[in-house]
Amino acid sequence: MSQPDPLQLTRTVLERVAKAPDPRFRVLMTTLVTKLHEFIREVDLTPEEWMAAIEFLTATGKTCTDKRQEFILLSDTLGASMQVVMLAQARASAAAPDGMQATPATEATVQGPYYWEGAPERELGSNIAEGVRGEPAYYHGRVTDVSGQPMAGVLLDVWSGDGEGVYDMQIEGQAEMLARARLRTDAEGRYSFWSIRPSYYPIPMDGPVGRMVSGIGQHPNRPGHIHFKVSAPGHVDITTHIFVANSPYIESDVVYGVRDSLIVEFQPHGPGRAPDGREMKTPYWTAEYDFRLSPARAT
Amino acid sequence: MSQPDPLQLTRTVLERVAKAPDPRFRVLMTTLVTKLHEFIREVDLTPEEWMAAIEFLTATGKTCTDKRQEFILLSDTLGASMQVVMLAQARASAAAPDGMQATPATEATVQGPYYWEGAPERELGSNIAEGVRGEPAYYHGRVTDVSGQPMAGVLLDVWSGDGEGVYDMQIEGQAEMLARARLRTDAEGRYSFWSIRPSYYPIPMDGPVGRMVSGIGQHPNRPGHIHFKVSAPGHVDITTHIFVANSPYIESDVVYGVRDSLIVEFQPHGPGRAPDGREMKTPYWTAEYDFRLSPARAT
Repeated sequence: MSQPDPLQLTRTVLERVAKAPDPRFRVLMTTLVTKLHEFIREVDLTPEEWMAAIEFLTATGKTCTDKRQEFILLSDTLGASMQVVMLAQARASAAAPDGMQATPATEATVQGPYYWEGAPERELGSNIAEGVRGEPAYYHGRVTDVSGQPMAGVLLDVWSGDGEGVYDMQIEGQAEMLARARLRTDAEGRYSFWSIRPSYYPIPMDGPVGRMVSGIGQHPNRPGHIHFKVSAPGHVDITTHIFVANSPYIESDVVYGVRDSLIVEFQPHGPGRAPDGREMKTPYWTAEYDFRLSPARAT
Repeated sequence: MSQPDPLQLTRTVLERVAKAPDPRFRVLMTTLVTKLHEFIREVDLTPEEWMAAIEFLTATGKTCTDKRQEFILLSDTLGASMQVVMLAQARASAAAPDGMQATPATEATVQGPYYWEGAPERELGSNIAEGVRGEPAYYHGRVTDVSGQPMAGVLLDVWSGDGEGVYDMQIEGQAEMLARARLRTDAEGRYSFWSIRPSYYPIPMDGPVGRMVSGIGQHPNRPGHIHFKVSAPGHVDITTHIFVANSPYIESDVVYGVRDSLIVEFQPHGPGRAPDGREMKTPYWTAEYDFRLSPARAT
């Protein structure tokens, strides 16, 4: 079919994708084509800008390796990843049985590119950051369901960078995990462990996404945070962070991951006896946070 | 800043990109973020679908080589390239001086991935497809401006696949150009050359874009066509095709490049004396097409 004008062209493409046999793919392609063509028309995209976009996407693909995912970084810095996270959590909450949702579940945030499956299982109270740079911090709290009932045996998969914002995966030749662990809550739903107080850090800026971030005049930093995946059978898993209150960039996270309910005041302490009885020779911090899990949709 | 809900997240990202120092980049990023977030929200994109999109884009990048541009193929098969072509031509026409546009310029279409700069300069009437598979065809016509005045010395950069739809660039080990030439119109604005009558052909289907095209149930073919870049000083260059009328897939070009005004009836002839006096021992075709160029915007 011939295309007499740009709007007719869009209609022709939409007629074509409307024939996709899979109904969900049909919805995705229809909306994608609609938005893509609207974008091109509304900005009156020039051939030179179109070619710059082709080159940007190609360079982004070429920057991806088994250790670096530049398209996820692109999605993160456009707020797209966080949008997907928020929609997923809204869907999961909507599915909770009526009346059970006394308090909302803990808010989710982006997973980020540094998750590493299979962290070592550690006892509650362990120091998961032996030999890692940074100021010690004692993390503790409880996991409950949304009605406030403590949940025993909940799995917490924890990871962070070091006190200077560097993850083990970013260290050349570092084959072993650092500042990562899997722990399970006790009979009262309690968890505790020692690690470091995490620092803010920049996303990788030497690729195409870094050039885009610079182009909008945005700094490249994420505020200090520690990652958690919290999971229990029959409940909606949560991938989230605890953010360090007053960390630089807490108001302007480059990947839009901050949610007020995830910001925790880390309390400073001088040397002495810590809450778990450990004798600390240096100053340290404590951070307390309680997680809440929603029931999963019945299948 | 914290994101209490998906719509506020979009507003926060828009506030951020609104700070881009370059005004055009600001417009592009603002519209891109708006459309991208609308897409995600309207389809309620799941984390699994988001990851499939990340993997699709990464594979598309990995498929690009110095001989293959999978992102251009993606743009082509989504109708995005043709949209950009049509907008560019509309802009160029809008810029023509009042009253000069007696007849519109020849319609443009996609350049496609097989343009090769520096084709050999040939005399009018030459056979540019010596040794190339396919049925001979004699191409001729005139180049005029939009008021109908013949234009002498206009450059025509011509290329096509062979009679089975294969371009020189696709042939393993083929280092020399085939079925390509640059010619210039004579004093009366006339051009003529011999080549072959081009066949329909499929786009490369062994990459991620091929999987997408299959997913919508679309065939992978382009109808038979020969490419022209027509250029003259003081005029708007045109990149276009002549399409073979009644070619298979003329109604459903996979890259949406067909425009009615570019479809030409190829006339069949038995062996004998051709219009240019050449004695043909085999049947051949003739194709006549006149190009019209718009004046360029004064700078």
